[in-house]
Amino acid sequence: MELRVKLLGIRSGGKQIIVIDDEYASRLGIHSSDRVEITHKQQNVIAIANVATDFPKKTLGIYEEVQDKLKAQEGEMVQVRPAERPESLAYIRDKLMGRKLLAPEIKMIVRDVVERHLSDIELASFVTSLYIRGTSMDEVEALTKAMVETGQTLDFDKKPILDKHSIGGVPGDKTTLLVIPIVAAAGFTIPKTSSRAITSPAGTADRMEVLCPVDLTIEEMRDTVKKTNACIAWGGTLELAPADDLFIQVEYPLSIDPLLLPSIMSKKKAIGADYVVIDIPTGRGAKIKTIGEAHALAQEFIELGKRLDMHIQCAVTFGEQPIGYGIGPALEAREALSALIGDGPIDLVNKAASLAGLLFEMMGVKDGTQKAKDILESGEAEKKFREIIAAQGGDPDVQPEGIKIEKETVEIRSEEKGRIQWINNRAMAQIAREAGAPKTRGAGVLLSKKLGDKVAEGDILYTIFSGSAQKLESSVTLAENLNPIGVTGKFGEKMLVDRIPTKKISREKPFILER
Amino acid sequence: MELRVKLLGIRSGGKQIIVIDDEYASRLGIHSSDRVEITHKQQNVIAIANVATDFPKKTLGIYEEVQDKLKAQEGEMVQVRPAERPESLAYIRDKLMGRKLLAPEIKMIVRDVVERHLSDIELASFVTSLYIRGTSMDEVEALTKAMVETGQTLDFDKKPILDKHSIGGVPGDKTTLLVIPIVAAAGFTIPKTSSRAITSPAGTADRMEVLCPVDLTIEEMRDTVKKTNACIAWGGTLELAPADDLFIQVEYPLSIDPLLLPSIMSKKKAIGADYVVIDIPTGRGAKIKTIGEAHALAQEFIELGKRLDMHIQCAVTFGEQPIGYGIGPALEAREALSALIGDGPIDLVNKAASLAGLLFEMMGVKDGTQKAKDILESGEAEKKFREIIAAQGGDPDVQPEGIKIEKETVEIRSEEKGRIQWINNRAMAQIAREAGAPKTRGAGVLLSKKLGDKVAEGDILYTIFSGSAQKLESSVTLAENLNPIGVTGKFGEKMLVDRIPTKKISREKPFILER
Repeated sequence: MELRVKLLGIRSGGKQIIVIDDEYASRLGIHSSDRVEITHKQQNVIAIANVATDFPKKTLGIYEEVQDKLKAQEGEMVQVRPAERPESLAYIRDKLMGRKLLAPEIKMIVRDVVERHLSDIELASFVTSLYIRGTSMDEVEALTKAMVETGQTLDFDKKPILDKHSIGGVPGDKTTLLVIPIVAAAGFTIPKTSSRAITSPAGTADRMEVLCPVDLTIEEMRDTVKKTNACIAWGGTLELAPADDLFIQVEYPLSIDPLLLPSIMSKKKAIGADYVVIDIPTGRGAKIKTIGEAHALAQEFIELGKRLDMHIQCAVTFGEQPIGYGIGPALEAREALSALIGDGPIDLVNKAASLAGLLFEMMGVKDGTQKAKDILESGEAEKKFREIIAAQGGDPDVQPEGIKIEKETVEIRSEEKGRIQWINNRAMAQIAREAGAPKTRGAGVLLSKKLGDKVAEGDILYTIFSGSAQKLESSVTLAENLNPIGVTGKFGEKMLVDRIPTKKISREKPFILER
Repeated sequence: MELRVKLLGIRSGGKQIIVIDDEYASRLGIHSSDRVEITHKQQNVIAIANVATDFPKKTLGIYEEVQDKLKAQEGEMVQVRPAERPESLAYIRDKLMGRKLLAPEIKMIVRDVVERHLSDIELASFVTSLYIRGTSMDEVEALTKAMVETGQTLDFDKKPILDKHSIGGVPGDKTTLLVIPIVAAAGFTIPKTSSRAITSPAGTADRMEVLCPVDLTIEEMRDTVKKTNACIAWGGTLELAPADDLFIQVEYPLSIDPLLLPSIMSKKKAIGADYVVIDIPTGRGAKIKTIGEAHALAQEFIELGKRLDMHIQCAVTFGEQPIGYGIGPALEAREALSALIGDGPIDLVNKAASLAGLLFEMMGVKDGTQKAKDILESGEAEKKFREIIAAQGGDPDVQPEGIKIEKETVEIRSEEKGRIQWINNRAMAQIAREAGAPKTRGAGVLLSKKLGDKVAEGDILYTIFSGSAQKLESSVTLAENLNPIGVTGKFGEKMLVDRIPTKKISREKPFILER
């Protein structure tokens, strides 16, 4: 059927979408979400149909992604016909029915995801099926490999390649900003790609961006690694395992992440990592709640690593409270820099030294943690960090007090005396986000007390920093509701941990999705 | 945040959608598929965000559904903020996790479906979860009641109200066009609402529309029933259980229908049906393959009926081949009319008499099937059918030979002699659709032979009717590939029923979704 092109001037963020009137859709025999094939001169595009009512007749509305390929002008006639259903749909349906998929089938699905041949409905059903039916290790391996193959891969000269990754879930976790320079200072290559926050107050890329640009091109990344052995770049522009970003777009609204392992490991494989330490923060308010769960997940990482020719070490770390005191990009960047200078909180320093130490021990060093601490104390890690900042285009002479924090603040004080019994990670993250983090770099929360600390009545528990009076107010209101820190005279005095609300609080979105 | 309105001039078919640039989405803290609340003067609208890249900055693109409620003009400033997540999302997630839902929770979900507060991703995940996790009878009951309550309901004076429904899957099944006038001629009230084809070559509404209008208003429907005891209307405009149409939009691309029972029974309940016969065609090429499956499904219909104060009888009918000879709206309307006049194929007449007979027996008649046959043979059913056609605005004097069939034809002949061993329903339906049915009313397939018939070499097996030479050609090609009729010298001579292709034929969409 011939239809007249109407340019909609909308870029969907990758999806190839066309809009067509319902009468013409029905003449073509297509329904919403069906695929159509559009032909214009030599160009051929498969797009997903949005069926609209009241749309101009005999007209094909096209998103810019379609226009990029079709190169048709407003008002030109193009040929439209129903497209064949992608073969991958049959396998998505098989998974829905409970069948374990084979590697070539999974590859076909991932390829169609990356080429945008699947609709949101099909993707959502696939991700839901993966979650409910579960994935075998063969499936996880196939998913990972397919995600690597459908994206860019990097190859660095100076082997072996080391890497670290945290599965996330603990606010204030700026450990990467210490581990990378420590490892690089020891002469190892560690080209770190990182992500921005999705559901947390700060991702590693957000923290690092306070100090220098992180949206490096592949060339700039190579260059930085050549100069410094390392980098701390944002992975978003590098097209490493791009399927992951598309899966996340569906996982996020559903609050599930059945693709956790393939997602993390495909990005590691894509940069050619040989030795990787995976941090699994474990605690009631973290993503992983119990040591048992952490062990099960670690086994899967290790097995998947073997299948991908990577050496994996997993670290189960204490995740019952935030790491250090600062939560929010600038507060965390400042704290990390202070720690490298030699004035860091004990948990942050020990966590960084332990993780770097595990990597060192994988490389044959005897007491890895001690070596990491030595490098930190010698100032070599700080020097290396400043080199990395300079190589990425930031100011190498930056000082902690030079990092801008928002001025609007409220101090939250204790109404009783005693000791800190618990700190709710999830609530802390929500309060920091409500204050404006990660968008407002200088917003967030600065703790004054941590677990076990003594507290007098009226002592500051934490301070909220926000960029606007309005956000400050709403974060204080949230803080009052969530009451994220428990102070008690002695353990056992307060036994009521939580109440189950009779009505679900829909605003609260406890799901942690970080990569 | 204040944004400038841009009217997109697109009606999505009900969904409340806005488009926003990714930079502004991120400032608002929203992702694609998140909900936003838009305020303009006194108006307040919750809409689902499509996050676009390259969309004008500081601009809110709005679909016509949003504009209908917001009443903002192009260029006006409106307030936009993230909306709270609907409470129903927590229950959708619970179902995903495997929990059985409670009635008030299901009601909240269905209400949010009808009010368009859920995105495609959320709906797809819910439907997928319902399919994989299964639904308890309590859940089915709650779904059905919620679907009734969120739509229009009808109340007819002349009680009791009878109804019939087929779960579909057999091509050429024009039985309703006989059952309704037979039952109405006996003095019972049977206000039939029907649907158009979704995956088949003709729905009851498509068949009836060959003879008279079917898109009646509620008033016209009442009027027709008052005059004739019956009607055969299209349910699409009546807003009976509108949630169903929204679920179908997701079920169709996924080729699953976990909402079969609520879907059918909510529409029956909405018209106030007291006595209903449900036809379950059973056979290898039908939706239900085995008698065992049919019995299990029938039990569910009966139990659900009890919970809804409806009397249900289920008929397991022979579904191994098409009903009668014609497949496609006009061919079927002609055959149904002929049958009412007294010249009908034996299977069609017997099926109609059996189903009408079951309804009669529910009303206390002794030999229901005989009574149905008597009414058919006496010409009363034909008279009644013509009354219904007239009341709905059609020509009551229509004759079978007056119904227009397409002129482009190809006869498919047997290459061997013997008897018809099997007829593939699914293939027949596909060929009729490829020829243009149901859109082209006069297109379709006319069988010359049925199961068990003797065939000589060169005998016509069936004729394809199509509206265009191009469609005719592609349907003939499909017919050659699918080879839908098996002729054999004697049973046992051909034992190879099917081959499993090494590659999935993605074009073939075997799923039957009819309501």
